[in-house]
Amino acid sequence: MANEKIPYKIYLSEEELPKQWYNVRADMKKKPAPMINPGTGKPVTKADLTPVFCDELVDQELNETDAYIDIPQEIQDFYKMYRPAPLVRAYCLEKALGTPAKIYYKFEGNNTSGSHKLNSAIAQAYYAKKQGLKGVTTETGAGQWGTALSMACSYFGLDCHVYMVKVSYEQKPFRREVMRTYGASITPSPSTTTEVGRKILAEFPDTNGSLGCAISEAVEVAVSNEGYRYVLGSVLSQVLLHQSVIGLEAKTAMDKYGIKPDIIIGCAGGGSNLGGLIAPFMGEKLRGEADYRFIAVEPASCPSLTRGTYAYDFCDTGKVCPMQKMYTLGSGFMPSPNHAGGLRYHGMSAVLSELYDQGLMEAVSYEQTAVFEAAQRFARVEGILPAPESSHAIRCAIDEALKCKETGEEKTILFGLTGTGYFDMYAYAAYNDGKMTDYIPTDEEIAASIAKLPKIG
Amino acid sequence: MANEKIPYKIYLSEEELPKQWYNVRADMKKKPAPMINPGTGKPVTKADLTPVFCDELVDQELNETDAYIDIPQEIQDFYKMYRPAPLVRAYCLEKALGTPAKIYYKFEGNNTSGSHKLNSAIAQAYYAKKQGLKGVTTETGAGQWGTALSMACSYFGLDCHVYMVKVSYEQKPFRREVMRTYGASITPSPSTTTEVGRKILAEFPDTNGSLGCAISEAVEVAVSNEGYRYVLGSVLSQVLLHQSVIGLEAKTAMDKYGIKPDIIIGCAGGGSNLGGLIAPFMGEKLRGEADYRFIAVEPASCPSLTRGTYAYDFCDTGKVCPMQKMYTLGSGFMPSPNHAGGLRYHGMSAVLSELYDQGLMEAVSYEQTAVFEAAQRFARVEGILPAPESSHAIRCAIDEALKCKETGEEKTILFGLTGTGYFDMYAYAAYNDGKMTDYIPTDEEIAASIAKLPKIG
Repeated sequence: MANEKIPYKIYLSEEELPKQWYNVRADMKKKPAPMINPGTGKPVTKADLTPVFCDELVDQELNETDAYIDIPQEIQDFYKMYRPAPLVRAYCLEKALGTPAKIYYKFEGNNTSGSHKLNSAIAQAYYAKKQGLKGVTTETGAGQWGTALSMACSYFGLDCHVYMVKVSYEQKPFRREVMRTYGASITPSPSTTTEVGRKILAEFPDTNGSLGCAISEAVEVAVSNEGYRYVLGSVLSQVLLHQSVIGLEAKTAMDKYGIKPDIIIGCAGGGSNLGGLIAPFMGEKLRGEADYRFIAVEPASCPSLTRGTYAYDFCDTGKVCPMQKMYTLGSGFMPSPNHAGGLRYHGMSAVLSELYDQGLMEAVSYEQTAVFEAAQRFARVEGILPAPESSHAIRCAIDEALKCKETGEEKTILFGLTGTGYFDMYAYAAYNDGKMTDYIPTDEEIAASIAKLPKIG
Repeated sequence: MANEKIPYKIYLSEEELPKQWYNVRADMKKKPAPMINPGTGKPVTKADLTPVFCDELVDQELNETDAYIDIPQEIQDFYKMYRPAPLVRAYCLEKALGTPAKIYYKFEGNNTSGSHKLNSAIAQAYYAKKQGLKGVTTETGAGQWGTALSMACSYFGLDCHVYMVKVSYEQKPFRREVMRTYGASITPSPSTTTEVGRKILAEFPDTNGSLGCAISEAVEVAVSNEGYRYVLGSVLSQVLLHQSVIGLEAKTAMDKYGIKPDIIIGCAGGGSNLGGLIAPFMGEKLRGEADYRFIAVEPASCPSLTRGTYAYDFCDTGKVCPMQKMYTLGSGFMPSPNHAGGLRYHGMSAVLSELYDQGLMEAVSYEQTAVFEAAQRFARVEGILPAPESSHAIRCAIDEALKCKETGEEKTILFGLTGTGYFDMYAYAAYNDGKMTDYIPTDEEIAASIAKLPKIG
């Protein structure tokens, strides 16, 4: 092994686990643009949001000033059940690539939900319980978020209603069964259980569903049922706050061994993992204490940062949620059905969008066959079968490491391995059979979708 | 938390990981009966076994005297990729049960193969590589072993041919795809690629296959192809030796915190996990240094210890492997197709059979609905979705903890959580839908199968 002092896997002790989340907005000189109430056209108030979200989560969503927010003890206790997530030195991948680069990954897949989503699910479930609610509603696409939320609700004895994008409900019956095992009820979306679902079904009876549509249904059920609120697994600033536990743990582990990353890479759909992974490092950059390269990796089939526009847009198809200024492909953008896994959301977290717009972060996109080639390569040398989402970051990390091989630079690369691919074997089968294809939307498709953006801001 | 000093999860450091395996046979006064060559009717020699198994593995199989065997550095390096496996204090389960018992589990599911099987797979692949072989053949039932071996062979660049029991091949396409992702070739068994397969298909054209039949096919291919050997994931003494890493890690972690288990529980099919988990503790018991209760938990549908007989039997349906003295239901015993997961082997490891026969270990059996009830309960409070196999141990641990609740005893219980259930969602779905049934073989069925045992020993 190249460096005897650094173990394959760094596990923090329970005492070293973060006791506070880090709120990167507090260190941003120019803050993300405020959410807009689509009814009034004005910035949202706490009163606008509390019918939809839990009270304390609304406070967190609107909090742009406190850099650190205490993690309640109950959440810390739950974190101990599946954290620390290890920081892994990819010795075997480095050797296979023949690169002088040092590659680390923060592995968030060692829990039954199979991804980092549990970090925010348990926080949101906790605040719902604390508020005395009966339950929560949500949507899920690939199923990672729904699984995480089911686990969290089961732990706190909360009702959990999940609207699952119809195509996933049918193609991923096992994801559905995991959620049911944790006591959640699952409805394929669009459904006839909501007004917005019935409307969409009337217009598009053969639709496969979309994340935007499932969000609209989940919100409608939350606001029209006493004792329920809506929770969301990505995009929101509160989610990035909870996910900062990823970056805080990674930074503590690296600091402990005197490791400083040059490049930090994360896959980006709504931005929950990337925002959490980079948070404390970005804080240092914002405060002028250190410099890092940050790279957001998105799918070529749904390229909001690399090919979208920075403007106010709806977060959901039904247009019931607040509008947000973000890099977006338009809320009507439908990612190609050939795209596997998550990362198929039309927009990007307002925080990450603003950081990207300020030039503090880069973005690249990859086609899915290139992503699965990296996934298979990684699995074979590092053992872990990665989720398709995470494999975008792997692809980029491999490419950066290969650049180092050309230049001879010994850069230190950190990437987020957000989860495992056990429930994505249809996609792996397509790749194994040589039947996986790529799809890149045309400029005309994207322009047509963006042309329908609301005229605000 | 009941005891502030003991963390939820104990992770050993890399320095604390075992450097040697422990061979429990060295401390057994009465050794397991020798394997018999079915051709000669005499104890097998090294020369009998080397056409089938790798040379160093034959030495390990026959070694009854060395208590400790060095773990080669290459295997130690691979172990670092997914070990240490945590020893977890089940604080949440204890609280949910309201028991004064202290429950610990050694969790072996945090790797892509999803189980402890990787511990022996990497060892067997290493010795095959060291011997300069081209590849290995094996069988797999539920798929855990095949997945583990695929990973190990991919790491060392070995060919891997897996004969997968036909019913699993068809019902578990995702398992198959994981193996293919790691570069293995998979053949549903019985197949027309072997003589024994063709013979079985001619006799039973509609058979779903069985582990015993898949073993026969894999052995035939290994012995008739230059540069190939056969490897097996359970039953053999060499496998128990490799799996001792489970018990050694658990014991080191417990010793570190001054914890002494009263009861040690493991599920038992062929015995690989149970044999590994109990090894160092059983060593202390054999040497008179400490006392523990050991409980083997088997499925009521395939109860080799609790309802079988202790006699020489064939290890495979095709009768090509050496015979072993073991607790067995007869090599022709076919577990009910309603049985989920692994643990459906007709016999039990010779080492465990002998320990059981000497009264050093207890055995119980559970029906599968009771097992899944425990699995769901465990998942909801401890987060981890357990494999059906592991859930047998959970069921028994819960029952022992509930006995402590009645008596007020603060016993310390350790059980082996061998793996995760991500690829067993058909079974979970049956349970979630209330469609899971139990099957217990009749005395007549078992007697009829045992009547066909070979007359030896």
